[in-house]
Amino acid sequence: MYIIKVGGGSQINLAGVVADLAELQEPYLVVLGANAARDALGVKLGIEKTELTSVSGYTSVYSDDDAIDLIMMAYAGLHNRRFVELCQRHNINAVGLSGLDGRLIQGERNRGIRVREGGKTLIKRDLSGKPRSVNGALLEMLITQGYRPVLSIPIIDEQGYAINSENDDIVSILQETLQADRIVQLIEAPGFLDDPDDPDSVVDLISANELKDREEQVKGRMKRKMLALRRLFNGGAKEVIIADGRTEHPVRDALAGKGTIIQ
Amino acid sequence: MYIIKVGGGSQINLAGVVADLAELQEPYLVVLGANAARDALGVKLGIEKTELTSVSGYTSVYSDDDAIDLIMMAYAGLHNRRFVELCQRHNINAVGLSGLDGRLIQGERNRGIRVREGGKTLIKRDLSGKPRSVNGALLEMLITQGYRPVLSIPIIDEQGYAINSENDDIVSILQETLQADRIVQLIEAPGFLDDPDDPDSVVDLISANELKDREEQVKGRMKRKMLALRRLFNGGAKEVIIADGRTEHPVRDALAGKGTIIQ
Repeated sequence: MYIIKVGGGSQINLAGVVADLAELQEPYLVVLGANAARDALGVKLGIEKTELTSVSGYTSVYSDDDAIDLIMMAYAGLHNRRFVELCQRHNINAVGLSGLDGRLIQGERNRGIRVREGGKTLIKRDLSGKPRSVNGALLEMLITQGYRPVLSIPIIDEQGYAINSENDDIVSILQETLQADRIVQLIEAPGFLDDPDDPDSVVDLISANELKDREEQVKGRMKRKMLALRRLFNGGAKEVIIADGRTEHPVRDALAGKGTIIQ
Repeated sequence: MYIIKVGGGSQINLAGVVADLAELQEPYLVVLGANAARDALGVKLGIEKTELTSVSGYTSVYSDDDAIDLIMMAYAGLHNRRFVELCQRHNINAVGLSGLDGRLIQGERNRGIRVREGGKTLIKRDLSGKPRSVNGALLEMLITQGYRPVLSIPIIDEQGYAINSENDDIVSILQETLQADRIVQLIEAPGFLDDPDDPDSVVDLISANELKDREEQVKGRMKRKMLALRRLFNGGAKEVIIADGRTEHPVRDALAGKGTIIQ
């Protein structure tokens, strides 16, 4: 079983991804991002995105009720359903689901993010949290019957409320439950770059042991990404492939070894 | 098994509906409308709704690509997910699905609607169609496992494209496949009114045999509604209850016999 994480950037070649998935023999599920769709809709609706950077240096989106509405419309609504439609047109029997549905991705709401504002340290609490468990029975039932789950935020908190969460963390918890043989992450870059400004600096192979050192070298969202990768291997991942989602055949290329392989 | 059709008007008491469903012993699925949510979002996004009236007198929404986007955002996205969230907060393990997911509601795209425009009869073709079959295996698998499906448009056409469809027709095809014991339809009126302008003219009981005559008496969308009711009984329905979705306990009241019972 593979987990295919498709980034939510506007340059991701979704038609190419789906055409490749239609050829894939291995069962899989998709974790689908929709940043670009969310941001575009937010602009149209006049809902502004607020990002917070915690005192420990991690950046995340501040999620109020409007932000959850936006996620439901853009992630679970438009982007997920258009992706499912694309799958169905390629005879992939996709089922689009959010973490709310069947309590698929159960999370724990964040107690608050410690931020610095005007020289003070404040705690800001929002509708976001960390995924803690997965309804593996439902996912396995669907996959066994030939369906291909396509998962999008929001996830569900302890009280049944919709909350935002990071897709990297969702992939980690899915891995812990489903023990996928391979995880493919399609992004808007040719792979993991040694120098973020140089697309020719793709690192072909990273050992899982190196991830801790790499995490200390990088900043912002990339810091969180490296932490999430480390958690994937703690959760039993054997192989993670970070590859370019913008090529003609993103999945085919990734499985052929293009991009960065982490083992 | 019950089919609960929840209208998409802004006055429907969704919290009351879900509180009632949480007490229901019988398994069920929900067909969820979202007209008001769709129209409100359409206004915000500047996407105008076009209605067409066919030469034979039936009115329907003209669905282009923008209209499908809007349906995905408002029906399958926001409204469905907020409803599922409400269910989860009441310990109902709801699963929100569109007709695309698992090819749940398969339709046949309309060949075109014959309309009169400027003294001429034209054929206008859009992204809409009639539901023709249901993935009953998936629905039964979910319901048997304790999940409660919450269905919203769009549905899927022969080529895998998302199309708009009438919820009344969707309920008919679900009935043909699932043979529900009861169908409850929650609307923004106290039941079927003999005089549409007089809320005190609720008809307590209608015989299924009367539906054809009633259909000839009414106009516009109500004509389509009576036709759909007739199709429900042709599809094996035993009892349909049309009741007020605006009361404190819409489902409890409906099952207690308030509203219009059609047998």
